[in-house]
Amino acid sequence: MRIMLIVQYDGTAYCGWQSQQNGLSVQAVIEAALEDFCGAKIRITASGRTDSGVHARAAVVHFDTDLTLPDYSYAPALNCRLPGDIQILESKTAPVGFHARYLAKRKTYAYRVYRSDRALPLKSRYAVRVQNFNAEKMREASKLLLGKHDFKAFSASGSSVKNTVRVIYSCEIEESGNDLTIYICGNGFLYNMVRIIVGTLLKYSDGKISLGEIKASLSDGDRGRLGKTMPPNGLTLESVEYDN
Amino acid sequence: MRIMLIVQYDGTAYCGWQSQQNGLSVQAVIEAALEDFCGAKIRITASGRTDSGVHARAAVVHFDTDLTLPDYSYAPALNCRLPGDIQILESKTAPVGFHARYLAKRKTYAYRVYRSDRALPLKSRYAVRVQNFNAEKMREASKLLLGKHDFKAFSASGSSVKNTVRVIYSCEIEESGNDLTIYICGNGFLYNMVRIIVGTLLKYSDGKISLGEIKASLSDGDRGRLGKTMPPNGLTLESVEYDN
Repeated sequence: MRIMLIVQYDGTAYCGWQSQQNGLSVQAVIEAALEDFCGAKIRITASGRTDSGVHARAAVVHFDTDLTLPDYSYAPALNCRLPGDIQILESKTAPVGFHARYLAKRKTYAYRVYRSDRALPLKSRYAVRVQNFNAEKMREASKLLLGKHDFKAFSASGSSVKNTVRVIYSCEIEESGNDLTIYICGNGFLYNMVRIIVGTLLKYSDGKISLGEIKASLSDGDRGRLGKTMPPNGLTLESVEYDN
Repeated sequence: MRIMLIVQYDGTAYCGWQSQQNGLSVQAVIEAALEDFCGAKIRITASGRTDSGVHARAAVVHFDTDLTLPDYSYAPALNCRLPGDIQILESKTAPVGFHARYLAKRKTYAYRVYRSDRALPLKSRYAVRVQNFNAEKMREASKLLLGKHDFKAFSASGSSVKNTVRVIYSCEIEESGNDLTIYICGNGFLYNMVRIIVGTLLKYSDGKISLGEIKASLSDGDRGRLGKTMPPNGLTLESVEYDN
């Protein structure tokens, strides 16, 4: 029996999704709760990994079990074993052949920034301070990224991924006073890709890179001229979609 | 020279504003930063105390010093000595005769709740989960509280305050999807008063207390029939106003 979980977490306290030697991971905490509930070690598989400090509103996870517990019972049983910053929103039986990672068709990330001269304690858990932004200019630059491109320049150096071609379906930029949220939906993302995209949109907003230079990096794969990798705390995995 | 500070803090990690024997207070952390910067122990006075876990978007604080540093220099100097969850938004010379507590004329608190079957990690730092709410009914009940009343029933038992008469100037209830924010502006608030008001508005929203019973408690001071004291993390001191 394959069970699907929808998971929300505040990643501040964790070393990321994946279990690592140093630091507590979201995966390890959920697997420990599952072991406590089921009495057996169960490995869980997520739609993807998030980095240290990155949040998730609705990550998708699956695991296999021989237990015949009702599928809906996992959410409340795990929640009372999980800390407040990791909770299961829903548990259900996965469709036949379902795989949380291989079958993920679209992922949407949000990156949040706020404009302020000072760091604001009530914003800085889920958003990153910037001196300024121009939403209209950022929308203009974001259009270059739509569609299928080789996003090699938009990935952290040292990544071992061979195929760096990805499709971005949409990039929506919502401005509300001094808050800005960039929603990016794509078929998959390279390591640090969203954070480099946002850094580059902000660099264009600041007038420090041209549209031509962004296009050039899409062609020649040069990370150097693009914007900086933004900090993890502004990033949230908002949703993962599958074909039905 | 009297210096005024505007302070924002996330109260999650603190035992409240006031220095206490157990737990770290926001006041103690700011006073330690001030001592480190000024080289002398300086006592600070706030517009009011907040309880353990309560947040502040713009608390007002003053202190006296013989130092002749520029008034604006305190904010950056303290911020680099303060943790990320407490920051000074502004420092300036206080008007002649200014007192952060005695001269505060109006305070506005916000209380945030969200409607969900499950606790949501990305909401629960600054808002409290409720099963349901009816904003229109809550607005109806809130009208009973406007103006000058004896709010004895809306204060924690055991409080030593003698005069329990307060004026509420406004109560605005903003609904946005499953999020609800209750803004309450008054000339002052008793211990736990906002949290009991919100608990009572929610109790009315749930149909478990009548408008007549709320009126009765305003008359007879009976805490018993009112709603529960809501948890601290939903509460934020939004602003403090002074006459110029």
